[in-house]
Amino acid sequence: MEAENMRSREHKIVVAVDESEESMHALSWCLGNLSSQNANNTLVLLYVKPQPVHSTFDAAAYMFSNDVVGSMEKHGTKMVNSVMQRAEAVYRNFQTNAHIVRVVGKGDPKNVICNTVEKLKADTLVMGSHGYGFFKRTLLGSVSDYCAKHVDCPVVIVKKS
Amino acid sequence: MEAENMRSREHKIVVAVDESEESMHALSWCLGNLSSQNANNTLVLLYVKPQPVHSTFDAAAYMFSNDVVGSMEKHGTKMVNSVMQRAEAVYRNFQTNAHIVRVVGKGDPKNVICNTVEKLKADTLVMGSHGYGFFKRTLLGSVSDYCAKHVDCPVVIVKKS
Repeated sequence: MEAENMRSREHKIVVAVDESEESMHALSWCLGNLSSQNANNTLVLLYVKPQPVHSTFDAAAYMFSNDVVGSMEKHGTKMVNSVMQRAEAVYRNFQTNAHIVRVVGKGDPKNVICNTVEKLKADTLVMGSHGYGFFKRTLLGSVSDYCAKHVDCPVVIVKKS
Repeated sequence: MEAENMRSREHKIVVAVDESEESMHALSWCLGNLSSQNANNTLVLLYVKPQPVHSTFDAAAYMFSNDVVGSMEKHGTKMVNSVMQRAEAVYRNFQTNAHIVRVVGKGDPKNVICNTVEKLKADTLVMGSHGYGFFKRTLLGSVSDYCAKHVDCPVVIVKKS
């Protein structure tokens, strides 16, 4: 009974994508290995936009003119488009029947990813292991470690070999 | 091309099972969500036997008579059978076409799991997040954290909700 339920009901799979090769590899893994051929399934491509400078370093916000902030916002939007286009190329290659939804978040990636998984009541979270840069990772710990500890659903951590 | 390769070739999936409910839930997740219906796939059920007392506490080994060690070994064998029987009940429920292989290791679970994944050149490792007890986890860190960091293949961490 449990087995039948698991196979037939809709699955919501969140894939955290970013500018890294590894996150595209995570998306490929998801399309090739999870039940992505099922038209009942929804694949949520989640991209977290870098935080605007004024919210990352509140105390230092005055140092940046509106021009700089505006140009960074523009860069962020370009990045979203570029990542989503690359993701589209990957899932086109797999000719998936799953329903694809694109979600763009803003803020601290680990919090945005965990909150999105919770809000959507996702069944699975798929992500690369090294997202969001070496420097930040060393300072703040790995985003994937954090998410694996804090979300309730199964988490798939994919490395680019 | 990559997409076709991913779908058609044999996949070796290692599922780390132990006496916890969570590891049986991880096995269920694997059977319900990964491509377990593919007869080309091999599902490796890996159980790691608790270390015998003399190898865990070398210095204190003399404290235990052969009888005590023998009885613990016997208990370990009983545990293997009990866990494998529970696992069998789970995969029977899913009527999987995948080829099932049982592997029993001995030693430190995190090392045995990582070494087995490497030796078998497994494609995916699936495990519960809280295996091998709260006390040991607090002292030594989570087995799943360690494995997620040290194996090269994708790792699925499943929680019992």
